[in-house]
Amino acid sequence: MLHNETSTGCLSPIEEIRQAIDGAKHPALFIVDTISSLASTEYRHDEWGVDVSIGGAQKGLMLPPGMSFNAIGPKALAASENARLPKSFFAWDDMLAANQTGFFPYTPATNMLHGLSESLDMLHEEGLDNVFARHDRHAEATRRAVRAWGLEILCRDPKYYSPTITGVLLPEGHDADVFRELALDRFDISFGTSFGKFTGKYFRIGHLGDTNDLTILGALASVEMTLALAGVPHRKGGVQAAMDYLISAARAPSRAAAE
Amino acid sequence: MLHNETSTGCLSPIEEIRQAIDGAKHPALFIVDTISSLASTEYRHDEWGVDVSIGGAQKGLMLPPGMSFNAIGPKALAASENARLPKSFFAWDDMLAANQTGFFPYTPATNMLHGLSESLDMLHEEGLDNVFARHDRHAEATRRAVRAWGLEILCRDPKYYSPTITGVLLPEGHDADVFRELALDRFDISFGTSFGKFTGKYFRIGHLGDTNDLTILGALASVEMTLALAGVPHRKGGVQAAMDYLISAARAPSRAAAE
Amino acid sequence: MLHNETSTGCLSPIEEIRQAIDGAKHPALFIVDTISSLASTEYRHDEWGVDVSIGGAQKGLMLPPGMSFNAIGPKALAASENARLPKSFFAWDDMLAANQTGFFPYTPATNMLHGLSESLDMLHEEGLDNVFARHDRHAEATRRAVRAWGLEILCRDPKYYSPTITGVLLPEGHDADVFRELALDRFDISFGTSFGKFTGKYFRIGHLGDTNDLTILGALASVEMTLALAGVPHRKGGVQAAMDYLISAARAPSRAAAE
Amino acid sequence: MLHNETSTGCLSPIEEIRQAIDGAKHPALFIVDTISSLASTEYRHDEWGVDVSIGGAQKGLMLPPGMSFNAIGPKALAASENARLPKSFFAWDDMLAANQTGFFPYTPATNMLHGLSESLDMLHEEGLDNVFARHDRHAEATRRAVRAWGLEILCRDPKYYSPTITGVLLPEGHDADVFRELALDRFDISFGTSFGKFTGKYFRIGHLGDTNDLTILGALASVEMTLALAGVPHRKGGVQAAMDYLISAARAPSRAAAE
Repeated sequence: MLHNETSTGCLSPIEEIRQAIDGAKHPALFIVDTISSLASTEYRHDEWGVDVSIGGAQKGLMLPPGMSFNAIGPKALAASENARLPKSFFAWDDMLAANQTGFFPYTPATNMLHGLSESLDMLHEEGLDNVFARHDRHAEATRRAVRAWGLEILCRDPKYYSPTITGVLLPEGHDADVFRELALDRFDISFGTSFGKFTGKYFRIGHLGDTNDLTILGALASVEMTLALAGVPHRKGGVQAAMDYLISAARAPSRAAAE
Repeated sequence: MLHNETSTGCLSPIEEIRQAIDGAKHPALFIVDTISSLASTEYRHDEWGVDVSIGGAQKGLMLPPGMSFNAIGPKALAASENARLPKSFFAWDDMLAANQTGFFPYTPATNMLHGLSESLDMLHEEGLDNVFARHDRHAEATRRAVRAWGLEILCRDPKYYSPTITGVLLPEGHDADVFRELALDRFDISFGTSFGKFTGKYFRIGHLGDTNDLTILGALASVEMTLALAGVPHRKGGVQAAMDYLISAARAPSRAAAE
Repeated sequence: MLHNETSTGCLSPIEEIRQAIDGAKHPALFIVDTISSLASTEYRHDEWGVDVSIGGAQKGLMLPPGMSFNAIGPKALAASENARLPKSFFAWDDMLAANQTGFFPYTPATNMLHGLSESLDMLHEEGLDNVFARHDRHAEATRRAVRAWGLEILCRDPKYYSPTITGVLLPEGHDADVFRELALDRFDISFGTSFGKFTGKYFRIGHLGDTNDLTILGALASVEMTLALAGVPHRKGGVQAAMDYLISAARAPSRAAAE
Repeated sequence: MLHNETSTGCLSPIEEIRQAIDGAKHPALFIVDTISSLASTEYRHDEWGVDVSIGGAQKGLMLPPGMSFNAIGPKALAASENARLPKSFFAWDDMLAANQTGFFPYTPATNMLHGLSESLDMLHEEGLDNVFARHDRHAEATRRAVRAWGLEILCRDPKYYSPTITGVLLPEGHDADVFRELALDRFDISFGTSFGKFTGKYFRIGHLGDTNDLTILGALASVEMTLALAGVPHRKGGVQAAMDYLISAARAPSRAAAE
C-alpha cells in the first residue's frame, strides 16, 4: 500500500486495511510506502501493525532525493530469514548486523545522513504535532481555493484527502500539461504531472515539507493567474478563500494555545 | 540626494534637480545615493550629470550587505584633488591608482566581489530592461493592493512612486510596529520600520532584488491576513487586485514581445 | 572482478582476464567494479570487452557517496532480457527506456547529478591524460616514501601496483589500527583500515580524487610522524624521497610539454 | 604600531612601547593594529594600556575579508569626544549608542557576523591557549625548515619572531617574485609578496588561522621543491627538520597535559 497516494492525492486508511487483512486471516506481509507522508502526517508503524514501512528523504524530511530506509516488524524479519528468493533492497542481514555498532555495511550516502540529522532537529524543534497541523492547514487552504475556483478535487471522498498533495481536475477540453507548462514559464513554479486514466486531465499541488502560509498562497496565486492566462473557465477568489481560512485558523484558540 | 528614498518610498527626480542646480549656477557637487535603486530602475550617472554616485551590494544587486562603491565624475575628481579636508571613504587616490592594474589598494571583501560577479551575470541574463519592468510591475501590484485595502500610500505624488519600496500608512490609532511584529510572528515576514515624524504610523513593503510575482503576492497576502488578525479596518481584496493587475500585465503585448 | 582492489591496493589486468575467459571459451559474463579506479586511471569498457562495468561517485569522481551506475555491453543486455532470476539493481529495463528521453524512471539523486556534471567538467578541464598522470605520480611518490621508511608495500608485484591506493604493512608486532587511531588523533587524518587475513597488519594510503602534490606530501608527513610517535621501527626520509621524486617528475620534459 | 608586522614577520613589544610612552610622559594616543595577530597570539588591550586596538576578520579569525572593528580605551574615548577633526572610521558615537541595544547604526555586513559567531565558537572549542600554542609550534617548525635550507629569516632578532608569518630571504641574485610565481604555477600555493627596501628579495610564509601540522608541512614542502626547481642554492632537509620538531613537540609532556 501507499500510505499517501502521491499520484492522486488520497490517504490510505492503513489501520483499517490491517484490520481487514487480519479479519480475513490472510498471511500476506503488509508493506507500506510512506515516502510522501512520513513526517507530514500521523503514521504508526508499530501500532498499526505494519510489517515493512518504506520512507524516503525527499518529501516531508525536506532533503534532496538520495536516501530511503525501511522499518521492519518481527513478522517481516522472520519471513526474510526464511525466504529463498534472491533479495537486494530487502536483504536486511548486513544492515541489521551493522546496526549494532552504528556503522553501515556498505558506503552510505554520508551527506544525506548529515542532512537527515538536521531535518530531524528542525522537525522536533517545531514539534511533530505542529508539523502535522501545519500540513493539514495548508491542505485545507488548498482545497478551499480549488472549490472557490469551481474546480474539482481528484480525491472524491473527504475522508481520504491527502494532507500533502491535492490533485485538481481541469474542465473537459483543457490540457493539464499545457496548464503546467504555462505556470512554469510564467511563474517559475512546477506542478506535479498526472497519471493513469486521468493523464492530462489534472495537475497536482504539493503542500508539504519546508512550507509556510506564504509559500502556499504564492503557489495558489500562480494557479489562479495561470487559469486566467490559459483561458480555463473558473471563478476568481480561490486565493481569497484560502486566506480567509488561514486567518480563521490563526484566530482559533487551539492554535493560540499550542503556541 | 537619495535617488530612492528608502524610508518613505519616493523616487527623487535626479535629472531635474541637476537642472535646477545648473539653473541657479550653484557650484555644489551633486552627490546621489543609489543604494536602494541601483540595478532596479533606470539610473544615469553620466547623462544626468551626477558628480558622485554611491551604490551598495545589498538591494538590487541581491547580495548580503558588506560592499559599497562610488562612481565619480570629473568635477568631483578635481574637487577631491584640491580639497584640504581630511577624507576617508572619499579619499579616492589610492583606489584610482590601483584601478589601473585591476587590484585594490587595501584588502578587498573578496567574497563580495565573487558574489557581485554572479549577480551582474544574473541581471544581464534577465536583461536590465526586463529587470526594471519587473520592479515597476511589482511596485504597481503592491500599490493596487494598498488601494484595494483602502489604505494610504505614504508617497503622495504618483510621479515620485518608488519602484522598489512602498510605505503604507495605517489608520489613525493603529501602531505600525505592533502590526510589523504580528506579521513577523505569524507569517515569518519582516516589513520595514517607519521613520521621522510618521514613526509608528506606517510600515514599508520592499519589492526589489531577487523577487518574482509569487514572492510579491505572498508578501501582500501576509499584509492582508495581518490586517485582519490585528483588527485594522480595511477592505479585503488587495491580493486579488494585485493578481488582476499581474494577469493583465502578463497578457500585455509589450511583455510578450519582450520575451 | 575489481579493476582496482581497494582493500589491497592492486590493479587487476582486466584485458588479460578477458582474454583468458575468451581463451577458455567460457560463457560467463565479465562484470568489473571500477569504483576506486574510474576517472583515476585508464579504463576501457568497450575495448577490453567488459560486459558490465560498475562505477560510483565517491572516489575519482570526487563526489560524496550516493550514486552508482552501470555501463552495459550487448552480451549482458541480451542475458538480462532472457534471465528469469528476480533482479533489482541489475533490472535495467526501466532505465534503458527512460534513457531515450534523458529522464529517470524513478526519483534520481538530483544533487548528485549536479555534482557529477561539475566533476566531469573539472576532469575534462584538467584533461584525462593529465589526471591519470597525476595519479601515477602520487602513487609512485607514496611507494618511494614507503620504501625509504623500510616498510613493505602490500601489493607484491609492481606490475599490479594500484594508482589510487597503497597498502603499507607494519613490522611484526605493531598494530595498524593503533597506528591509524594515533594518526587520526594527532594529525586529523584518517587512513584506510585493513581486511582479510592481514587484518590489523597494514593500513592504506589513498592517493586519488581531488589531490595535489602538497596534500599527498602532507599525508606522507603524517605517516612518518606517526611512525615515530607510535614507536614503529623505520628509517626517516620517506617524505624526502617523495619530494625528490616529485621534483624530478616536475623537471621531466614530457610534463613540461604537456603543459 | 602594528602588533604583528605582516610585511616583515616581526612581533612588536606593545607593552614595552606603552611603558616607553608613559616613561616619556608623552600624551599621544597609542593605537595598535592587531589584524594579523588577533586570535593567533596573546594580546591584552586593557592590561597593556592600548588606547585603540584595530582588528580584522581575515587572519586569525579565519573569515573572508570584509569586517574590521575597534576596541577603544577611556583615553581615546575622551579624545574622540573633544576632537574637532572630521572623522569617519573613528567616529564612534553612533556605534557606541547602538551598542547599548545590540543593533548597528548602519547596515552591518550580516554574513560576516554569522561567520564571526562561528569562528569564535571554533576558537573557544579549541581553547585560546591551545590556539596560541599551535601558532607558536607552526612558526618554530617553519623557522627550523628555513634554517635547514640555509636561508635567512628576515626578522633578525628571535625576541621579535612573528608567530603568524615568516619572511624568508633568498640568496643574492634570486628574484623572490619569480620564486613565488613558480610555486603558484607548480604547486597551487600563493606565498606573500615582499615590500619596501627588500622588495623582490624575500617571500613570506603565512602560518596562521585554520591550519594544522599537515597543511604547514605541505606548504614547507612546496618551498623546498620550488627552491630545487628554481635553481636556488639551498640544502635539502627543511621539511625533515620541521617534522623532527613537530614530532618532539607532540612528545612533550606539557602538550600531553594540555590535552
